[in-house]
Amino acid sequence: MLDKILMKSLKANIKPSKKEDLLIIKLPKPSFSSFLFTTNHFLAGSVIYTKKVYEKNPYVSVLVINSGNANCGIKESVYHSELICEAVSKKLNVPKEEIYFFSTGIIGEALPIEEIIKAIEKIENLEPFDIELASKTISTTDAFPKYVTKENSFGFAKGAGMINPSMATMLSFCFTNAKLQKEVLKDVHKDITERTFNAITVDNCQSTNDSFGIITLSEKHIELEDVKKELFDISKSLAKMIVKDGEGSNKIIKVLVKNASSKEKAKAISKAIGSSLLLKTAIYGGDPNWGRIAAAAGSTEFFIDQNSIQIKILDTVVYDKTGLNFDKKALSQKIKERDEISIELDLREGEFCFESFSSSIGYEYIKINAEYTT
Amino acid sequence: MLDKILMKSLKANIKPSKKEDLLIIKLPKPSFSSFLFTTNHFLAGSVIYTKKVYEKNPYVSVLVINSGNANCGIKESVYHSELICEAVSKKLNVPKEEIYFFSTGIIGEALPIEEIIKAIEKIENLEPFDIELASKTISTTDAFPKYVTKENSFGFAKGAGMINPSMATMLSFCFTNAKLQKEVLKDVHKDITERTFNAITVDNCQSTNDSFGIITLSEKHIELEDVKKELFDISKSLAKMIVKDGEGSNKIIKVLVKNASSKEKAKAISKAIGSSLLLKTAIYGGDPNWGRIAAAAGSTEFFIDQNSIQIKILDTVVYDKTGLNFDKKALSQKIKERDEISIELDLREGEFCFESFSSSIGYEYIKINAEYTT
Repeated sequence: MLDKILMKSLKANIKPSKKEDLLIIKLPKPSFSSFLFTTNHFLAGSVIYTKKVYEKNPYVSVLVINSGNANCGIKESVYHSELICEAVSKKLNVPKEEIYFFSTGIIGEALPIEEIIKAIEKIENLEPFDIELASKTISTTDAFPKYVTKENSFGFAKGAGMINPSMATMLSFCFTNAKLQKEVLKDVHKDITERTFNAITVDNCQSTNDSFGIITLSEKHIELEDVKKELFDISKSLAKMIVKDGEGSNKIIKVLVKNASSKEKAKAISKAIGSSLLLKTAIYGGDPNWGRIAAAAGSTEFFIDQNSIQIKILDTVVYDKTGLNFDKKALSQKIKERDEISIELDLREGEFCFESFSSSIGYEYIKINAEYTT
Repeated sequence: MLDKILMKSLKANIKPSKKEDLLIIKLPKPSFSSFLFTTNHFLAGSVIYTKKVYEKNPYVSVLVINSGNANCGIKESVYHSELICEAVSKKLNVPKEEIYFFSTGIIGEALPIEEIIKAIEKIENLEPFDIELASKTISTTDAFPKYVTKENSFGFAKGAGMINPSMATMLSFCFTNAKLQKEVLKDVHKDITERTFNAITVDNCQSTNDSFGIITLSEKHIELEDVKKELFDISKSLAKMIVKDGEGSNKIIKVLVKNASSKEKAKAISKAIGSSLLLKTAIYGGDPNWGRIAAAAGSTEFFIDQNSIQIKILDTVVYDKTGLNFDKKALSQKIKERDEISIELDLREGEFCFESFSSSIGYEYIKINAEYTT
């Protein structure tokens, strides 16, 4: 499937580093897509523009993505999006209605629009799709490129939490060869998003640019369960890569809340635990501090019964209806040695569970986010 | 008023530092009180116990407060609370129903109950109330004692965000000489709490032990407006002291959201901005990064119109319907020089406003919270 997709990675002088910062992906034909955008009310011009185009026509032929500038908070943001799509439309001879535009980078600065248009006009030929180069081109503060390929699907993403000087965004694009009915794709997309990109948190901060799309090239009949599994596995891997890349993070924290009376409750409590700054710093320091897990678990709108629950850190039961004696030194050592720390809260009241992924937070987070000065 | 209140500050071997860690306050007579407790579902035994006593009898004669141990997450927590109040009851000859007990400190360890009982039994005489010593006795990781006295009221508190090894709590006790009707006191208390202790955030973490009470000695007729003002001023000062003491914080961040269409909206957005880890680190580093304010403002359930709002940092308009050009270097310098950084978001849609207080977060936060190992 990859060989039918073409791309161009350009340097349009958007990133101060002068690295590749503009990616154009051309699909073999207009392809049905399902997109989800950030729920932030403060939106990048690129999101405002693309949402409108997508809502009128979910069949996409070309994706344009710039990195280094979020195209957000400036009054020309939407207009610039339109100019860029017009230039691509003319150059590649593709209707403007089939072109989506995405941005990621710093908020509040205008795009160098003339240079971008010039770079687009200079394109001579497209090249075979190169998923690593694609992933690198859309990166900002990412420490490593993020992509996954499977037999009939692939995906790539950027994001490292909402981290650097307003370089905030999670962008993810998945492609599948499978023929999927529109409503089926939308349902699959929503379900996968809930359990992957919506189940991660680095610092609770929500971006103005987040977007996640699945595009079907519809060339092959594949069993629905197989497609779902491939797309879920790809999305989960990409989501975990983003958590792993959370700045200053030394560990992934996996929080499983099980036997809750509702899914909503399991999710809220799992995310409350994963978001606790106190827990994130404790894990960074190798501290098996179950008090911070308990306090975070109890902080949501949902009741928990402290006389009934059980808490495990890395398979060690640390709380069972009451705090337990356990070998704190040994468990601390284990936390320090492992890359992924699993925390399990058993509510012992129902049959629903939710697993979320988070990251530890350490000195590097402060360094990256405080020492930048405009 | 102070001279009618007696107290005893004891060393009961609860704090590893061997400093004063048990405070007993005796009022001249059973006095009507209004208390608010943490909404966390994971509760300290002291809160479970005292809530019950308070709900049956809001007339309090003795307050007992220990520091160094949260009395939380251990199955004896409630039973230990009862034992302590029984010992105080016997020693001071006060009905158990008029004794409230509070705790603050580490979660998950049993109180040294024998030593506490012994210390209580050894009390020979109470002493004149000393607000500074009272404040110091209930402190845990506090960098400075927190108390305020006014003509007819006074208050003292402990808390430094939810910060150290599970030393999590905000405790605050205010006393007034004013005669107040029960329902009036409750309303005043609720209103003040909303605008003071519920308007601060250090790290979003919610404690298992938070308690705030106002106690009326009812000895004097004072105009309601005057009492309200005194109690509000005391509470606001104490709340700001807690924010200032947020560990690793170098600055207070004041977030005013104005001209919102509802109070609920103004509050939600103000707190979202104040809670943004990205903003807190930016302010720590002296960065006038309005993109982080905008992204946090847009992240709540409430719609904001990015084409209509205005954002100010320290009186400099940085966004007005669009990002503006301003002297970033000069504003960064100003942020670095000031202790209190005011941020103002004008929604230009209604007449409601809300002001919240937050703190910057820097390396010290990570140090305190990560480098502790059990």
